[in-house]
Amino acid sequence: MKAKIKIFISEIEGVWTDGSFFINGSGNEYWKFNFNDLTGINLLKKNKIPFLLISGEESEAEKKGIAKFGIKSYKTGIKNKEKFLNDYLKKKKISWSEVAYIGSTIDDLNILKKAGLSATPITSPFYVRNVANWILRAKAGEGAFSQFVEDYLEEIGKLKESF
Amino acid sequence: MKAKIKIFISEIEGVWTDGSFFINGSGNEYWKFNFNDLTGINLLKKNKIPFLLISGEESEAEKKGIAKFGIKSYKTGIKNKEKFLNDYLKKKKISWSEVAYIGSTIDDLNILKKAGLSATPITSPFYVRNVANWILRAKAGEGAFSQFVEDYLEEIGKLKESF
Amino acid sequence: MKAKIKIFISEIEGVWTDGSFFINGSGNEYWKFNFNDLTGINLLKKNKIPFLLISGEESEAEKKGIAKFGIKSYKTGIKNKEKFLNDYLKKKKISWSEVAYIGSTIDDLNILKKAGLSATPITSPFYVRNVANWILRAKAGEGAFSQFVEDYLEEIGKLKESF
Amino acid sequence: MKAKIKIFISEIEGVWTDGSFFINGSGNEYWKFNFNDLTGINLLKKNKIPFLLISGEESEAEKKGIAKFGIKSYKTGIKNKEKFLNDYLKKKKISWSEVAYIGSTIDDLNILKKAGLSATPITSPFYVRNVANWILRAKAGEGAFSQFVEDYLEEIGKLKESF
Repeated sequence: MKAKIKIFISEIEGVWTDGSFFINGSGNEYWKFNFNDLTGINLLKKNKIPFLLISGEESEAEKKGIAKFGIKSYKTGIKNKEKFLNDYLKKKKISWSEVAYIGSTIDDLNILKKAGLSATPITSPFYVRNVANWILRAKAGEGAFSQFVEDYLEEIGKLKESF
Repeated sequence: MKAKIKIFISEIEGVWTDGSFFINGSGNEYWKFNFNDLTGINLLKKNKIPFLLISGEESEAEKKGIAKFGIKSYKTGIKNKEKFLNDYLKKKKISWSEVAYIGSTIDDLNILKKAGLSATPITSPFYVRNVANWILRAKAGEGAFSQFVEDYLEEIGKLKESF
Repeated sequence: MKAKIKIFISEIEGVWTDGSFFINGSGNEYWKFNFNDLTGINLLKKNKIPFLLISGEESEAEKKGIAKFGIKSYKTGIKNKEKFLNDYLKKKKISWSEVAYIGSTIDDLNILKKAGLSATPITSPFYVRNVANWILRAKAGEGAFSQFVEDYLEEIGKLKESF
Repeated sequence: MKAKIKIFISEIEGVWTDGSFFINGSGNEYWKFNFNDLTGINLLKKNKIPFLLISGEESEAEKKGIAKFGIKSYKTGIKNKEKFLNDYLKKKKISWSEVAYIGSTIDDLNILKKAGLSATPITSPFYVRNVANWILRAKAGEGAFSQFVEDYLEEIGKLKESF
């Protein structure tokens, strides 16, 4: 984490949720989110750090959850997250070393390696935890995103003044 | 906790719930509550201690949950909880030192400091746990409110007679 | 546990469920049950031990859950569980010492004391755990009822032959 | 695990789910699945190992969950799982020693004993854990199936190349 972080990027499943979905006999589907992650959004806003939510899934429930948090900067249904972010960062003129990334699956491995600062919830598989810079104390879906932001602000000495 | 507690005040998200909400593709939203918290209500009633539920969120699901517990003393959608409580306590002629408060987020920090007795579930972030008088053994959404009431009654030697 | 157990009686909330309910803005309510508890029912059937489910709550969701397990021996909406069971046991000519009971709340304290064998999930409040004969390893809503039955059959040397 | 594994077979309740179901007053029923188990499916595909999901339950919610994962190889509502698998394996000309099986209930005991490699989530009852070759670190419903596949591939030295 030598370079200044210019953007926080987060996967949704396995970070904002614990990866679960609820489904009934008609295929009606619910996703479970947690208001704990509002804190992370608010702390980033106060510190004027942009963020982006990404997801490999494509689900209306997921989108309604994102909307509930008032988040406009997101992209779902991404087939190749690494390629998508390469393009995105190029366009935004942000280098990988300026990215703080949190993810939890095999698809996130390369991204976690490339990012200047990477984190994963304590509930992630061992091969993801092996690669991330920080293994958070939070479980997926219980405010892991907020904890990542808080720990970063604490690290750079800006948490208290952000309250 | 020098002064006598005259009112119990509790946040909803992160205390009565674990902060989670369930949402589907139509935006239909569920909140998860726990009957464990009925015990706290009943114990306060037996001891004739009033209580108040407050929330920064505004949600119909939340209100229906509150109604399910038969609670009439609540206020949701509060933008500034500290200001709201300052006004409320003034009107009720209760001083902060007579308040027992339980909360779990950044917004609760000042309130937790002002209250005569403060508590937070074990699942709260470290900067909240640092400030609360009591860190409860209960997790958010699993009866933390009841445990706060029980521990208080135990502390003043009135738990057993309240059964 | 000197006398032979003639009936298993179980509370629903806090044993078959973790006490939680899910509610939306229309007041539509879900309860969460666990198929793990089917094992307990089947083991009792094999050993020809009757059982009874009781509940202080009155909820259609609760009843549909009970029906899903194929249970016909239950009573919900009980105001005074101790009184109800006194009458019930009298009618069935079963003494309290022949009852195996599992519960988790203040209302269960006297019943837990009277029953010949009593148990409570590990998630129950301390004043309930203090009173129960057995503190189960299972959490409420994760198969605590089945574990109570299994531990009993193990205790009397009949678990293995019940498989 | 002397023989080569030719098929992965998994129970659904207690492995892909934690055994829970959500039910309302109309009997509308939800099941909770976890995208974590997609990893297991993808890893098996990459290694060209077929798999089969089986279930003793019969539920439309369950089927919709299975469909959400894109799984076509499954059988629900099985009365006698051991008999069903005996027939199935005979038809497929696969011996029990070539089967990797994961299950969590009394009904799975014989199958766990017969399979060449058997596993169970850490949340299973002790008499199931006693019988399985591997007790996984994962809880039921939190990606136990994926962990079984990952641990197997790690064991035969093929996990890393499967990423």
